[in-house]
This record gives sequence, C-alpha cells and structure tokens, in this order.
Amino acid sequence: MEGMTMATLRPPLLVLLLAPHAFSSAVAGQPFDHGGVWIDLTHPFSETTVFWPTEPGFRLIRGENGPTAKGYYYAANRFQTAEHGGTHLDSPRHFAADGQTTDAIPLNRLIGPAAVVDLTIACQNSPTYEATIDDLMAWEEKNHRQLVDCILLLRTGWAARWPDREAYLGTAASGPAAVMKLRFPGLSPAAAHWLVAHRRVQAVGIDTASIDHGPSTHFGAHVALCGANVPIFENVAGLDQLPAAGAVIVALPMKIAGGSGGPLRIIAQVRSTDSSGTPRNAR
Amino acid sequence: MEGMTMATLRPPLLVLLLAPHAFSSAVAGQPFDHGGVWIDLTHPFSETTVFWPTEPGFRLIRGENGPTAKGYYYAANRFQTAEHGGTHLDSPRHFAADGQTTDAIPLNRLIGPAAVVDLTIACQNSPTYEATIDDLMAWEEKNHRQLVDCILLLRTGWAARWPDREAYLGTAASGPAAVMKLRFPGLSPAAAHWLVAHRRVQAVGIDTASIDHGPSTHFGAHVALCGANVPIFENVAGLDQLPAAGAVIVALPMKIAGGSGGPLRIIAQVRSTDSSGTPRNAR
Repeated sequence: MEGMTMATLRPPLLVLLLAPHAFSSAVAGQPFDHGGVWIDLTHPFSETTVFWPTEPGFRLIRGENGPTAKGYYYAANRFQTAEHGGTHLDSPRHFAADGQTTDAIPLNRLIGPAAVVDLTIACQNSPTYEATIDDLMAWEEKNHRQLVDCILLLRTGWAARWPDREAYLGTAASGPAAVMKLRFPGLSPAAAHWLVAHRRVQAVGIDTASIDHGPSTHFGAHVALCGANVPIFENVAGLDQLPAAGAVIVALPMKIAGGSGGPLRIIAQVRSTDSSGTPRNAR
Repeated sequence: MEGMTMATLRPPLLVLLLAPHAFSSAVAGQPFDHGGVWIDLTHPFSETTVFWPTEPGFRLIRGENGPTAKGYYYAANRFQTAEHGGTHLDSPRHFAADGQTTDAIPLNRLIGPAAVVDLTIACQNSPTYEATIDDLMAWEEKNHRQLVDCILLLRTGWAARWPDREAYLGTAASGPAAVMKLRFPGLSPAAAHWLVAHRRVQAVGIDTASIDHGPSTHFGAHVALCGANVPIFENVAGLDQLPAAGAVIVALPMKIAGGSGGPLRIIAQVRSTDSSGTPRNAR
C-alpha cells in the first residue's frame, strides 16, 4: 500500500522544505486556458439520487409542461430535498454550533487547485477504508508540495457504484436502523485532525456518501473539519478524470441562508497537460 | 439616453469590423490572478426570497439543530422551492419543447467573460424599460468588441430594491391575478431575436425577476433565447460591482435531471484593473 511505503521512506524534513504556497503557480497560471476542459464532478438530482437512509430523497414536483393557449411552450417545476444528499456541501455548521452556514462560506474556500489522493486500491481491499495521515503525506512527497491552499479530494472509486444504493452505501434499506449497516470508505478522524492542525486545506471532498463511514466513529472527521470552518463535499463524481495535481476546482453550493449544507455543483478545469507535463487524453 | 445617442452616431460597418473573438484575450488572461477578487452575484434563499406571484416561495424545513447524546453538535435541514425563484436559471426547456434541460446545459455556456450593459438611467425613468438593440450596439461600440462568446448581463439597478416585493416586482400580491400587476425592466423580444440571429452570447442574465417584464409580451425574449438554447439567469445580484467588460462569470445551477431551471449560484472574478486599465476600488 502506497501510504505505508511512504511512511517508511519519508524523510522527516522534506515536508517542511516544500514551499507552502507551491500551489500558487497553478492558480496564477491560466486555468481558463483554451486548451483546458471543464469537467462536471456532480451527480444529477433525480428519483434515483442516493440520500442518507434517514432522508426521503429528492422529489421533483412537475408543473405545467407543454404548449400554452398563447402559442408558446412552457415548463416549470418545484422540488423538495434534504440539504444532505446527492452531490452536496456540508457547511461547517453541520457539526459545529458556531460554524459557518452555507451562505456564509467565503468563495475563496470553494475555488482553488485540486489535490486528488487516489485511494482506490486500498478501498477495493477494504470497503470501510479510512484515508490516513500516511496517505496524505505520500501524496505530498509524490507531488512535491504540501496540502496547503488547495481543495483536497479523496478518490475511493465509489462513484462507479452510483446510484446502486446497496453497492454504494452498503445497504439499500431506509430508516434509522439502516444507518448501522452503512459501509463505504472515508477519512480517518486522525487525518482530519492532522489536516486542521498541520496543513491548511480550503475544503475536503470525497466520492462516497460521507467522509465518516459510519456512526461508530462519532463523526470524528466531520467534527474536526467543521470545527475549523473547513467545508466538506460529499458524493462527488468523476474524480477518475482528474490528475493528482493541476486541476482547478469550482464548487458552488445553492446559497441557503442559515443552511447546514445544500446541493452542490462542483466542476474542474483540467489543462491539456497535467502538472507533470504529460499530455492528457482527450475527453 | 446612451442607446439613442449611439443609434445616431453608429457607423454601420464598425460592428462588422470588430474582431468576433475579441473576448478571447480576457479569457486566456489570468482570471484566477491573485490580484483578482471573487464577487457573489447571488441573493440568498430564505423566507424573504422573491418568487413569481404564482409560486409559494422557498421554505426551509428545520431538522435537528443542537448537541447530541454522543457529544457532538448536529444540524440538518430539508427544503422545498420552485425552480424559478430567487437567483435562478431558466433552462432552454423552460420555453422550448426540445430545449436543453438543466442537467444538459454544457458548462462552456455557463462560464465566460461578462458583458455588462448598464441600463440604470433608462430604467429609473421607466420601470418597464426593455433593453433595445441600440443599447446592445452602444455597449459594443464603447467596448470595442462584439457580443460574441460572452455572458450578457443586463444591469437595471433593480437589485437595490430586493427583497421588497412591491418595489421589486411592482406588486406585493400573490396568486394568478397579481401577474398582471408585474412591473420591472426586461429585454425586448426584438433585441433577443437580434442576439440569436446576429450575435453569439453564451447566456443572458438580468437583475430583475424576468427578462420579459410581463405576460403582455407573450414571453417573446424567453421564447427567442430558449429556442436557441441560450440559458437565462434571473434575479442576479451585485451587477453594480462589475466593470462593463473584464469580469469572468461562473454560473452553476443545481443539477436537476430534466429540470426547466433551478437555483443558481453565480459569481464573478474581477481583476484589480478593469479592461480599460483603470484601477478598481478595493472591495
């Protein structure tokens, strides 16, 4: 496993020697370069959108839909949904009494260079794998930069299971009892605490239903990040289309006043060459 | 009035001589420049959010909110809303049977350089003013570029009236009868047709409740734009903070499968100098 190898090899001072603002050049570069491509990292909202077992899910209430007496076509709908389902934001307020609500998160938390940590092999072996400090430090060493001023994205491979609830959540059941059956990868509370204490990420995203994989953890990763006003993005799609570094993320939540979260539209721009200069395949 | 003056002075060939891709340099420049500032152009969703008189408005259904038995704080809510209210997207499907639905709009329609047409003086004099072809051509002449490959934003000054329904909509009443009392500025159907036939805008936004100012128009501007798959942004905020040219817009709607529209988060990056090289005030 990559993280364990790196833990063994890690020179203790290397991380300190990395420029803390190593990401700046990626940002000041040309993310809107005409050679770049915008990629949508968002699952659509529909009746099949995966929600937490205790939530009723997304419901589109169809309104008028067809030609009108005045000669034009017209369609308009309403909908109901939970803040926490589908590709969504957890505001710091979700797990912190004084955390920022959805409308209060500064835009500079939501826009920035991506750091994509690939955990797919570990997660294939263990469906409740939690990203470790070693996994994060291995990414730093490999990419020659710290996890500072960037949006950390944990790629577990779980998006390929969407929207099969059984495969994605570990259970297709609904209701409070189903919560104990949830099984998917997450972020270890220790790694979340380390990020808050020793790094400075703008936000953390994952391609599973939650950064905490079950109630047994007491939502330790959420508590650590929300307590430091670090927003969380869950049920993110398409992380397999991003390089480990070099993409730019724009993650814009619906602006719910006083919200604890909300539907999130998250996209990435990938340049035609990744950070290592390797040409990327056409998409 | 600026538009009328320009109509008189306009040399007929000038517009044809303008480079059709004059916006490219603004895009290929450094919109993520560290000297740039992100500005939110989105009204928050709350009980006071302005909706069309026939829609019930936004309703946050508060869930748990407080300390749990396990020791951590927890808050989570649900909500109901119409697709068309607050700062929102009109998908082409809103007024076109074969128009793109919300989830199908390409991202390159939603991200691009802003062209902000200031109509505030005309709208002060006439609360049902409709932007004309002359207004649009006056912007082109003044800014030395065509309305091509850009996001056209109509600034009427109406955002300053938000969320006073009477001042913003022309009526505080609800229900179908109130629709006849709506009064606010919009885009003339003739100008919308001209944009579709002779220019190539990515999208059109406005700081009022609709680009069509009432049912008497048979929604001619909507029909023209939606019929050409041009998305529309309504109830946009903060356009007074943008230069006429030089800002970059990112407008990301909630990804509703099959939607006719939806809540929109729209932001702009303004560089520390605008397109004319004039330093901008700190924000």
